[in-house]
Amino acid sequence: MSTFVVVGGDAAGMSAASKAKRDDPDLDVVVFERGQWVSYGACGLPYYVKGEIQSLDDLVSVTPEQFREQRDIDLRTGHDVVDIDPTTRTVTARTDGGEIVQEYDHLLVATGATAVTPQIDGVDRTGVYTLGSMSDGTELREYVSRARSDGDLQQPDRGPACQFLETCKGPVSIVGGGYIGVEMAEALAANEFEVHLFQRGDRVLKQFSEATSETVLAHLEEQDVAVYLDTEVKELAGNEAVEAVVTTDERIPVEMVLVGTGVRPRTALAEAAGVELGETGAIATDRYRETNLPDVYAAGDCAEAEHVVTGEPVYVPLALTANRHGRAIGRTIAGNPTEGGRIAGTAAVKAFHVEAARTGLLDHEAREAGFDPITETIDSKSRAGYYPEGGTVRVTLTADRPSGRVLGGSLVSEYGEGAVHRSHALVGAVTEGITLAELSDYDLAYAPPFNTTWDPVLTAAKVLEGNR
Amino acid sequence: MSTFVVVGGDAAGMSAASKAKRDDPDLDVVVFERGQWVSYGACGLPYYVKGEIQSLDDLVSVTPEQFREQRDIDLRTGHDVVDIDPTTRTVTARTDGGEIVQEYDHLLVATGATAVTPQIDGVDRTGVYTLGSMSDGTELREYVSRARSDGDLQQPDRGPACQFLETCKGPVSIVGGGYIGVEMAEALAANEFEVHLFQRGDRVLKQFSEATSETVLAHLEEQDVAVYLDTEVKELAGNEAVEAVVTTDERIPVEMVLVGTGVRPRTALAEAAGVELGETGAIATDRYRETNLPDVYAAGDCAEAEHVVTGEPVYVPLALTANRHGRAIGRTIAGNPTEGGRIAGTAAVKAFHVEAARTGLLDHEAREAGFDPITETIDSKSRAGYYPEGGTVRVTLTADRPSGRVLGGSLVSEYGEGAVHRSHALVGAVTEGITLAELSDYDLAYAPPFNTTWDPVLTAAKVLEGNR
Repeated sequence: MSTFVVVGGDAAGMSAASKAKRDDPDLDVVVFERGQWVSYGACGLPYYVKGEIQSLDDLVSVTPEQFREQRDIDLRTGHDVVDIDPTTRTVTARTDGGEIVQEYDHLLVATGATAVTPQIDGVDRTGVYTLGSMSDGTELREYVSRARSDGDLQQPDRGPACQFLETCKGPVSIVGGGYIGVEMAEALAANEFEVHLFQRGDRVLKQFSEATSETVLAHLEEQDVAVYLDTEVKELAGNEAVEAVVTTDERIPVEMVLVGTGVRPRTALAEAAGVELGETGAIATDRYRETNLPDVYAAGDCAEAEHVVTGEPVYVPLALTANRHGRAIGRTIAGNPTEGGRIAGTAAVKAFHVEAARTGLLDHEAREAGFDPITETIDSKSRAGYYPEGGTVRVTLTADRPSGRVLGGSLVSEYGEGAVHRSHALVGAVTEGITLAELSDYDLAYAPPFNTTWDPVLTAAKVLEGNR
Repeated sequence: MSTFVVVGGDAAGMSAASKAKRDDPDLDVVVFERGQWVSYGACGLPYYVKGEIQSLDDLVSVTPEQFREQRDIDLRTGHDVVDIDPTTRTVTARTDGGEIVQEYDHLLVATGATAVTPQIDGVDRTGVYTLGSMSDGTELREYVSRARSDGDLQQPDRGPACQFLETCKGPVSIVGGGYIGVEMAEALAANEFEVHLFQRGDRVLKQFSEATSETVLAHLEEQDVAVYLDTEVKELAGNEAVEAVVTTDERIPVEMVLVGTGVRPRTALAEAAGVELGETGAIATDRYRETNLPDVYAAGDCAEAEHVVTGEPVYVPLALTANRHGRAIGRTIAGNPTEGGRIAGTAAVKAFHVEAARTGLLDHEAREAGFDPITETIDSKSRAGYYPEGGTVRVTLTADRPSGRVLGGSLVSEYGEGAVHRSHALVGAVTEGITLAELSDYDLAYAPPFNTTWDPVLTAAKVLEGNR
């Protein structure tokens, strides 16, 4: 009987454990998780802080008891793995009661990522938060609850123009204009906080097209979020608690700071065991997610993945990839070698009343990858022009000029007008390597309540092909 | 200077005319349209009857004046083409003022389709309507306006349980449970009519999967539409005006009947000129939409198209194909030979508060086409389980059992939960001929407000691959 040991009990780890055990019930599957939460949806934390989700338990898709009792997985929470020894094929885990040593035949390193804490003076003052873990979520929600006069969050509805009202809570600030930054701007504004968002670069959501960033920025400002672009935060000033954000130009009083400046892979444990990292700084693997050490796999937010267009390793730590690669590893270990599949760098985000998605290589990425890109942004109605509801879908599409191959795109629309689901067509186009002419001939679903006769994605393909 | 003559001024005809003239300004482009309306969105007629669109003019995307003045197209409305002579390369058109003969170098037959009127006794009584043309729309709206107590339609909101209320208008009936049938059930119920819908077959929306049909049926019944399946209408009884629908079993009093039992291609003009029809009864063309007669093209609702999976000619008269093929013909005639592209048999529909889409070959179609299909229906949440909004997406997916190739699918969800836009991923899968395993590895956009980590389409692919 062979033993599959998993280090880390979130998406990649639990997907691998579950799939391996289901496909090979004879396998011993042991999961070490240093915390108490497993298989939780960290993507839902902003909505918990916002108050739309009432309990952290709601974020858990499968409970520890279910893993243990229904799936027959030896799940050990509160076990911090401190050493991997590939020679003896053992891992050492530290618990309250001391250390245990566990042998493995197959090992999965799924240690995840950790929020980057930038080198800013005062970042360790109280009142400075990150949002990477369930306990971060608890702390932030407690802060929000305390600050609200009723002390409780109940499906909040935001009042108007909080930035300018005496009754606003805060002010609070967010450092970083990525996913977490814009989602938390929504969560805090919905709770009547005056929100200041600081971004070092010249736009928010820099992974998306410039047109998408501009649309989201305009919307954030409409929602009375004070956005500071091209702004370096020099200090989080105060005494014990943070009292102000100090930039090159200004000193903005705040009573809370959320730092959302990205994540980095948690690789120290693997590195110490001799696992090689890739150029991105995350763990390098082959197409089966196996590392340089035999029978040692890595997946999820600690590992690289290959890009569908370039075939090159990239680091894009997102939930679907973790699930997908975890599941593939489970199949492989159960005796059915399965590639986890490549990624397209697809991502989606909601910010207040807009939604955005991106996939593939955008213009500058295509250029860096050696293509000669051509890019166009178009605005299209989201439903038939005469249909009583609807808005605008803005599509930025990038293709390779000589061949016409679709390389990537970025879409933004009002929330509910389908930028995200419409991006699904582009994911396929990018993955299959089809041309603009082929994409513009796609027989996409049409009816007046859903799109114009040519869906915005088709229009973008047609226009870009015309410009090529 | 050569002359391009178009017969029929709707989607296919005006797309071809516009594109040809734009790409080759030296071309003479003459369009004959027997009515007064051109380039109108017949798909919007149910929403005009419903009262959500206030004027038929709103359905027109480009006016006759714009075609004439801005696009320099010689558009002749009120011209009924009565003869095509391929020997002399002329068409004869009848107008109020007599007949004119027009020479052509290239000719496009875009004569559209006509509503099928079934052989039912009494179908010519007053109070019996179809919905194929703008004038049909006008008549139906006038009926609805008269019947409503205020005599006017103003963004109607439907009251509860009209079927059982004294205040209901009607009763009215719909013969046929296809797109027009379910859209018009919504339009009439929204105006407080008691609606009876008769369907000869055993389900509504028979082009969709059985699971989709069942979901839509249940919803129609929830909305108090009385649906009669497996029911043949024997007579529309009455005196001058219709007074009752008579079936094998019952006599249901009604004051109006809408017949929506499909369309057939308008081919008589082309046939008389020697244009060959295909087995479907629509005009046969090659991949450039050219008929058996040299320089005579056909497109839109009068013509066949090739299916992306089978390569066989099919008759699926829908707006996007008309636009797409018209545009391709315009390019070809302007000197840039362009295939119009194949179709996937994609379609979408909204009925009250549900939406549905289908594409490719469903189970029985796949079997008829010689595949050994495997089909599964799954229910998936439309957004993350913990997200406060959301519903269910029901996906029926069909693949070829031996190869795993994705052949088609049918999706249904609450309106706004994305069944239609999510079908875009399936259109790509069907068009590119990828396998279930490949589809389930697609890096589709995920965030909690938009889907579960595995989008419902991915889940369906995973489940079906597991069953294969």
